[in-house]
Amino acid sequence: MFQDATAQEIEEVMQQAWKAFYVYRKLPLQQRANFMRAIAKELEACGDELLKIAGEETNLPEARLRGERGRTVFQLNQYADACEKGEWLEARIDTAIPDKAPPKPDIRKMLVPLGPVVVFGASNFPFAYSTAGGDTACAFAAGCPVIVKAHPAHAQTSEMVAKAILKAAADCNMPEGIFAHVNGASIEVGKALVTHTYTKAVGFTGSYAGGKQLFDWGNQRKEPIPVFAEMGSVNPVFLLPEKMKTDAKAIAKMYAGSITLGVGQFCTNPGIIIGLDGKELNAFIEELGKEITKIAPGTMLHPGIFKNYRKKKDHALSQKGVDTVAFSETKPELNQGSPTIASTNGQTFLSNPVLHQEVFGPYSLVVRCKDMKEMLQVANKLEGQLTVTLMATDGDMQIHEKIVDAAKNICGRLILNSVPTGVEVCLSMHHGGPFPSTTDSRFTSVGADGIKRFARPIAFQNWVNELLPDELKNENPLGIWRTVNSELTKDVLK
Amino acid sequence: MFQDATAQEIEEVMQQAWKAFYVYRKLPLQQRANFMRAIAKELEACGDELLKIAGEETNLPEARLRGERGRTVFQLNQYADACEKGEWLEARIDTAIPDKAPPKPDIRKMLVPLGPVVVFGASNFPFAYSTAGGDTACAFAAGCPVIVKAHPAHAQTSEMVAKAILKAAADCNMPEGIFAHVNGASIEVGKALVTHTYTKAVGFTGSYAGGKQLFDWGNQRKEPIPVFAEMGSVNPVFLLPEKMKTDAKAIAKMYAGSITLGVGQFCTNPGIIIGLDGKELNAFIEELGKEITKIAPGTMLHPGIFKNYRKKKDHALSQKGVDTVAFSETKPELNQGSPTIASTNGQTFLSNPVLHQEVFGPYSLVVRCKDMKEMLQVANKLEGQLTVTLMATDGDMQIHEKIVDAAKNICGRLILNSVPTGVEVCLSMHHGGPFPSTTDSRFTSVGADGIKRFARPIAFQNWVNELLPDELKNENPLGIWRTVNSELTKDVLK
Repeated sequence: MFQDATAQEIEEVMQQAWKAFYVYRKLPLQQRANFMRAIAKELEACGDELLKIAGEETNLPEARLRGERGRTVFQLNQYADACEKGEWLEARIDTAIPDKAPPKPDIRKMLVPLGPVVVFGASNFPFAYSTAGGDTACAFAAGCPVIVKAHPAHAQTSEMVAKAILKAAADCNMPEGIFAHVNGASIEVGKALVTHTYTKAVGFTGSYAGGKQLFDWGNQRKEPIPVFAEMGSVNPVFLLPEKMKTDAKAIAKMYAGSITLGVGQFCTNPGIIIGLDGKELNAFIEELGKEITKIAPGTMLHPGIFKNYRKKKDHALSQKGVDTVAFSETKPELNQGSPTIASTNGQTFLSNPVLHQEVFGPYSLVVRCKDMKEMLQVANKLEGQLTVTLMATDGDMQIHEKIVDAAKNICGRLILNSVPTGVEVCLSMHHGGPFPSTTDSRFTSVGADGIKRFARPIAFQNWVNELLPDELKNENPLGIWRTVNSELTKDVLK
Repeated sequence: MFQDATAQEIEEVMQQAWKAFYVYRKLPLQQRANFMRAIAKELEACGDELLKIAGEETNLPEARLRGERGRTVFQLNQYADACEKGEWLEARIDTAIPDKAPPKPDIRKMLVPLGPVVVFGASNFPFAYSTAGGDTACAFAAGCPVIVKAHPAHAQTSEMVAKAILKAAADCNMPEGIFAHVNGASIEVGKALVTHTYTKAVGFTGSYAGGKQLFDWGNQRKEPIPVFAEMGSVNPVFLLPEKMKTDAKAIAKMYAGSITLGVGQFCTNPGIIIGLDGKELNAFIEELGKEITKIAPGTMLHPGIFKNYRKKKDHALSQKGVDTVAFSETKPELNQGSPTIASTNGQTFLSNPVLHQEVFGPYSLVVRCKDMKEMLQVANKLEGQLTVTLMATDGDMQIHEKIVDAAKNICGRLILNSVPTGVEVCLSMHHGGPFPSTTDSRFTSVGADGIKRFARPIAFQNWVNELLPDELKNENPLGIWRTVNSELTKDVLK
């Protein structure tokens, strides 16, 4: 239905974005925030029609889509508030000390936008991680124009959201080129966008193969640019022994729900569960199997994802020493992902890298360790993860400190006695983690700290107060928090 | 004198660093800070002997070396204070809202260290950007062990500083492997260090060729790691018309000093001066030439740097349309860098990329623009820079806003009516800038914000208060600033 953008069209889009950058970056924080709020309103104004189109393209149920749009609106408003509040600017002022030897000049620093940001829509979140999603909101807050490469699996939904953004842009008198929507099912469109001189950063959520490719293109440019790719993970769950003594069955029930939530199509889906071999783990596995078979398979996002799920799952299940514990009935002709639990022992897991890979869908592998030493080996062998979850009593946490330490070292979020699915949108959230879960463990794609991916500091030395940006003026006209001579304050400088 | 480290030695060093990481990262901020302060004391305790050795190796005068050691001691103490104060941790707490649908969990976030950091010593700063310099101090503050690759041009100085660090480490009961010193004149040693699995970040100050190579190695790893390389720049200076009407001669005097400071061997040396053709610029050039011939040539850091200076300078001067304005007498047999001023017109500069390149040494090129439109073209054509300087009246700043905007877009520090040389060590300093001045414009190598290069966030979800790190406990036992439910506060949580 949609045509891939031509090289000429991409060139025009980038030229417009570059021009818009020079205007948009100078607009006051409040205007940026109002623009973001206007987008949120337009998204809501799209009404049920948007949910209908998204439902047809993604097979996601209406309630989920309604919830996801609500989340997207919430995100836009929350990041707009953060943008305006200005703490992300990291404003720092050191006043002059003329009689120091040599004299210390007046220096003031704040974050400024990088430039046009290319955002790649994610297949599994048509709203929250796509066209008007978190990356777009963060880039707008930072002061960057945005070019969205629509995900071909929901191009029509993306187009409709793009129109809502463009309407908000027009209503708010934003410069032409502040936002552009580009279609492209081929790899060439993505490459042309990432490698364009005027592109200064990239945001991506999706597969390892896709994210790593963008990262490499970004770094191989004459002028390398930051590519933040969130590429998912297996989100290991450690079942510690004391906790298992009393709660094995309840944990199994909770995890049956988490593994199959949204047909397992979340990057925080728990794909590996590690426990100590014995009767508690057996009871856990039995209960998990029972629960899984009760959960009806759901239609996956699109045929490609379903095909991939079946392929990767079958590949994992065919490995030596891997047993299928339970699965739910499936109707493959409808692209339904069958909830599946497998199990293996610690040695098999440690020696076979295939079992460490993500199987995107409602699948989880239980790893039976023969002792805590082996469990520690497993923890130390795991790659970088978005999340690690510990099911543990206080006693477990103290006795098995080495497991806790190993977990801290490989993840971006460490959950205690809960499930990794469900990513709260708030400042304290970290949705990121060591490679290969993302391309830079120092940044997040959820929460207002995500703005910092698209901004860089600039220091003004020896400037005249009147010529400084409002954020750094003596009078602190925006009333923001600033670090003045090493002290955090909202005070006016005398 | 020093042998290159063998592959086996590097392997052992990295194993030790990895072990040390597990211990060091858990030490309280205060212990890290005390360790850093102990290093500062040991550096001072090295006395004049250290300055003598450094002088022999670098040809830098004693006063400069004494000053640079003082700066290094100051840095260690300042970053130790920042470490302890904990604002760099970006502690964020969002408390639970159990009756929200779905329930909002308690989430708390802070920065944790990346892991062992490899630091490359810089030839032009044997103390402040080398063994116990800014990168090392930032890494220790972040909680990372450090492996220093000594700069071969001052390996003995580096060795002596390394001993001071190791003595401080022993006195403070730091884990074995917290610091290691590796010699290597060959490219293989650097490559082995950057590509080692246990290396989690790299800090570098030096040439473009060196920094870009490390950056590429870092990104081509199976697990890419952040490589922060500060690679210098030409630090353009714009002479705006109204300012020049009254101050041309005074500016020339000031710049003669800045261009030749430390035999021009600073990454903030002003290498390009852009003005409007006419009698004011002629007066400026004449005065600058006069002043330059008065300044005695100085011995450069080592024969390699001198050779490079002569080669690059001769190459620039041999370009069509480039004239030598003035130079000071030189004695090349003593590796003395001759202060030199060249000039060219705007069109020549715009069309010849050779003239945009850094000539590391006491050299500067004056670019004569035929009008302000051409000056803007020059500003827009320049690559990323550590600094840009504007010599301007308030009126110039308003009339020539487009030049100011272009300048903001290409640099990390924007100086008004002063010189770029002299990098103040304070929180508001930004010593960084768009590529190719650094490999990541979002980070600084000077000031306590440089700690953030070596740390990443981790979020704790649904944790028990007693098990949380002190930084995130309800009681706020460290008394640090935290953002609690979106408000910055030092308050205790009830």
